[in-house]
Amino acid sequence: MSFQGEQYPGVKAPAAETDGFRLNHTMLRIKDPQAALDFYSRVFGMQVLRRLDFEEMQFSLYFLAKLEKGDEVPEDKAQRSVWTFSQKGLLELTHNWGTEDQADFAYHDGNAEPQGFGHICFSVPDLKAAEAWFDANEVEFIKRADQGKMPDVVFVKDVDGYWIEVVEAARMADKGD
Amino acid sequence: MSFQGEQYPGVKAPAAETDGFRLNHTMLRIKDPQAALDFYSRVFGMQVLRRLDFEEMQFSLYFLAKLEKGDEVPEDKAQRSVWTFSQKGLLELTHNWGTEDQADFAYHDGNAEPQGFGHICFSVPDLKAAEAWFDANEVEFIKRADQGKMPDVVFVKDVDGYWIEVVEAARMADKGD
Repeated sequence: MSFQGEQYPGVKAPAAETDGFRLNHTMLRIKDPQAALDFYSRVFGMQVLRRLDFEEMQFSLYFLAKLEKGDEVPEDKAQRSVWTFSQKGLLELTHNWGTEDQADFAYHDGNAEPQGFGHICFSVPDLKAAEAWFDANEVEFIKRADQGKMPDVVFVKDVDGYWIEVVEAARMADKGD
Repeated sequence: MSFQGEQYPGVKAPAAETDGFRLNHTMLRIKDPQAALDFYSRVFGMQVLRRLDFEEMQFSLYFLAKLEKGDEVPEDKAQRSVWTFSQKGLLELTHNWGTEDQADFAYHDGNAEPQGFGHICFSVPDLKAAEAWFDANEVEFIKRADQGKMPDVVFVKDVDGYWIEVVEAARMADKGD
């Protein structure tokens, strides 16, 4: 499918075999679950839908969602797992046990070399209010909306150093040709 | 908020200041847009909602969504940008111009050292059918559902080597305690 006749190299129309595919989550490794869960729940209002522990392999997975009005999360764990893996736009945080106790341990953010993954991005209703909220929560800015070559786009760092872009949809109307 | 009284270290209840925050997208750098757009449109049924070119900085951004029944994507570009940045679960692909012509150029997948980002994950309605679809499209498997220590979980690679997890929500009911 194309919009206004736009064509992009390589793009195919969606096949029926892909019906119902949904981009469920993005996984980031975290050093310290207490610090990361504090950050994502306090600053971005996310909640832990499910935690899965793997004793044998010594790691835990935390599946986080920013719930919205109308979301009905089942209390029952099995049903909640099914609900969780039916959603879009979740964050999975992987904690390999013990990293939180290693003073010099740090994960790679993907923006320093070698590059690959760049960032996750939150859409917010009011970018200015979000900047004030980040300041009130002592969040580290990479750039504010009025800095740099990309106006209206904010970048902050999470507690592991991963980049989080923050945009306001209404302020993106004039981006691109 | 907690479910069935579950408590996790560090977790706070969502503040009103985070109302309307949505996890809009994940950004991955790609070597060759033709190859990546072919892969994500053909294999996962994604479509390009918006392409933004930055002539001065020599890069392009492609915002991809797996559209669903009922999604009404505006034709008008400005409105489409606003729509795009209001969604959940999009994929942003960043192309730094010219990398596609460098034979030995490759991005870092985050799973080899140094580790950080792990994968994106698609939820699919039928994992067995998805495996057959990946085979029909000659997708490279990291693991199939019946391999390894994590049953019911499939991992494949995209054309840049990034890992994509694929799960069926109904088969995740028994995961965790």
